[in-house]
Amino acid sequence: MKNLKGACLFGQSGGPTSVINASAAGVFLEAMEQELITEIYGAEHGIRGVLEEKFFDMRKEDVQELLYLKNTPSSALGSVRYKLKPLNVDDSDYQRILEVFKKWNIRYFFYNGGNDSMDTCNKISKFLQGNGYECNVVGVPKTIDNDLFGTDHCPGYASAAKYVATSLMELYLDTHVYDTGMVTIIEVMGRNAGWLTAAASLASLKGYGPDLIYLPEEVFDVDEFVEDIKKVMAEKQNKVIAVISEGIKDRTGKYISEYLASVNKDSFGHAQLGGTATILAGIVNDKLKVKVRPIEFSLLQRCGAHLASATDIEEAFMAGRMAVRNACAGVTDKMVIFERKAGSKYAIDYKLVDLALAANTEKKVPAEWILPNHRGLSQEFYDYALPLIQGEANQPKEDSLPRFAKLKKVYATK
Amino acid sequence: MKNLKGACLFGQSGGPTSVINASAAGVFLEAMEQELITEIYGAEHGIRGVLEEKFFDMRKEDVQELLYLKNTPSSALGSVRYKLKPLNVDDSDYQRILEVFKKWNIRYFFYNGGNDSMDTCNKISKFLQGNGYECNVVGVPKTIDNDLFGTDHCPGYASAAKYVATSLMELYLDTHVYDTGMVTIIEVMGRNAGWLTAAASLASLKGYGPDLIYLPEEVFDVDEFVEDIKKVMAEKQNKVIAVISEGIKDRTGKYISEYLASVNKDSFGHAQLGGTATILAGIVNDKLKVKVRPIEFSLLQRCGAHLASATDIEEAFMAGRMAVRNACAGVTDKMVIFERKAGSKYAIDYKLVDLALAANTEKKVPAEWILPNHRGLSQEFYDYALPLIQGEANQPKEDSLPRFAKLKKVYATK
Repeated sequence: MKNLKGACLFGQSGGPTSVINASAAGVFLEAMEQELITEIYGAEHGIRGVLEEKFFDMRKEDVQELLYLKNTPSSALGSVRYKLKPLNVDDSDYQRILEVFKKWNIRYFFYNGGNDSMDTCNKISKFLQGNGYECNVVGVPKTIDNDLFGTDHCPGYASAAKYVATSLMELYLDTHVYDTGMVTIIEVMGRNAGWLTAAASLASLKGYGPDLIYLPEEVFDVDEFVEDIKKVMAEKQNKVIAVISEGIKDRTGKYISEYLASVNKDSFGHAQLGGTATILAGIVNDKLKVKVRPIEFSLLQRCGAHLASATDIEEAFMAGRMAVRNACAGVTDKMVIFERKAGSKYAIDYKLVDLALAANTEKKVPAEWILPNHRGLSQEFYDYALPLIQGEANQPKEDSLPRFAKLKKVYATK
Repeated sequence: MKNLKGACLFGQSGGPTSVINASAAGVFLEAMEQELITEIYGAEHGIRGVLEEKFFDMRKEDVQELLYLKNTPSSALGSVRYKLKPLNVDDSDYQRILEVFKKWNIRYFFYNGGNDSMDTCNKISKFLQGNGYECNVVGVPKTIDNDLFGTDHCPGYASAAKYVATSLMELYLDTHVYDTGMVTIIEVMGRNAGWLTAAASLASLKGYGPDLIYLPEEVFDVDEFVEDIKKVMAEKQNKVIAVISEGIKDRTGKYISEYLASVNKDSFGHAQLGGTATILAGIVNDKLKVKVRPIEFSLLQRCGAHLASATDIEEAFMAGRMAVRNACAGVTDKMVIFERKAGSKYAIDYKLVDLALAANTEKKVPAEWILPNHRGLSQEFYDYALPLIQGEANQPKEDSLPRFAKLKKVYATK
């Protein structure tokens, strides 16, 4: 692909993370250094902003505020969960995107997200290519789920993992304070891959870990779950901490949350909006007559930027920078990936993978890293995950509260 | 009271906080400097450890580990919720305590907790006095609820408040990321006083605050709640953040959680163990047909020591020290309190209040600080609370995870 002079466009997509804005900062600040890039646009609400021509003029922002993005969680430009239809079903969105790209002379397009977002990015890339429109497209990975293919790990994962592990350690102390029995069931995000749930086991390295861990990579059986808890109760003076993934599924592949959704209404007929942990807590309490407390880390695990990993922030930032550098060097149709260097000291290289591969493959926790009987993760997992959470966020503060980036968000006009 | 040479005994009671161990560190380290104090004991599980003569010999601990207590959440010695019977009903516990105190020559007794714990401390103090046993008794305040009488604020409150305010700011960004409607209902601890729930409003100072706040000081009406949300939905493009206290009550003084508990069973007959936010989320979803997400800060708000206020840590530590200093100077039957100095710069004096007063009076959020229509708190609250959360915890880390105190916990023998 040629390197044309033109505008660059960046969009954020999918669920927020603590460091998705660090990648945005990387893209914008690198773009400012590239002579080939004329205008720098941020799409409002990802692909929806493209379709509606809602672009923020990022050159109007203060550089200091862009740097604050490194410690500002969630998606500063707004996110979206819009799924492009397959091209052969309906090409109107694609035609519209091509029209907008031509009008705004978009020659560099960067899209930041997980599997679905890379699918969007891939489809756009292929359509532009197929229609002879020259635009270098590079995906920037992002997902607390850590399930993107081709990369050692994903920006966003480590900070969420650090939140989960740290909170687990604190909860361990809190739940062990009385000499009475208590079962704590903690629900962690991760719909199809158990990477984040597995991160709870990092607390075990320090002696404050959970007793039981249930990943979506394994079949979940409610009766077995109750039996497991009963066993640990006998071992540990009725004190149990069990960590479950929101994505646990039964033998038939059905989510436990769905499985129980039908019975999960109160007597008014209101849907009970509590998660799987709440449902399971009711069952354990009923069967074992023990005090049970369900805890959902909920949104906090993905937006708790005050506890972000410095390693994650820097890698997310660099992923943004590398996307721009590569695109300006002629690369297209790729996603930035991290490759871990050999050797005992943790370091990564920034490389690339085909967008098509990143879009359609899910990376799971290897079966051999999962200990039998839901008793946690193996040393291989610790060796994998511990380096990722290193370093403190050192979030800028104002009155001892986070100082988030304040963007002007001036719409670009054409 | 005379200052006898003898042993000191310290116990922790009630729910954990992020800084209850900072007070323990203050007590132990100060006791080591006092010539009148011979042995230094820590009661395991508070008053239960006294009754069972389970005392840790704190002189056996490394001083460095005692310093780590300043950043270790929860109750390192174990806590308890044991309530002494009224003396005129059954004096056996009191007689046992007197016997134990005599046997171990306890001449200085420090008890760390909230209202109930101060009630215990007060009863013991009065019984020892009444029986002519010379022992200086000083309470050390502790409660995230901030409802102890006589003190400007309570150790533990500020760190929990900082956790709530910071998490609110992060959640604000997370919940505003999509351009679709969503109601978020966040449940904060505080059974009878709304101090901690009110702390959510500190996020408003920075522009990331909740739309609605419901304190237990006000009557809660479910229909009114739904109407309030509907109003904000109209004002704010269907995006609402409502914060409720776990202690909200209806017109008759009944907790909303109790009120709904009867209908809060699933079709299996299992009790639904979700909190008030979950129940209200179901109702709002049902009545307004909007996406609703309940979030409970649960135990994390009281044990999130990584986000503790440095001011709180230091004050909790000093409260412990001052208890010992005062007792060794002849003070008894008192609780340490904080008195805010006049002037624009925040500073406190450490003073004392009668245990009997601390034990039996609850401090609520002043009605005039609560804005009408659940729209938040007044400037007076900000002026009160903001100074308390200042300063970062700078928690010691190991592998970027918290380094908690590791106590040997050697039982003392006699």
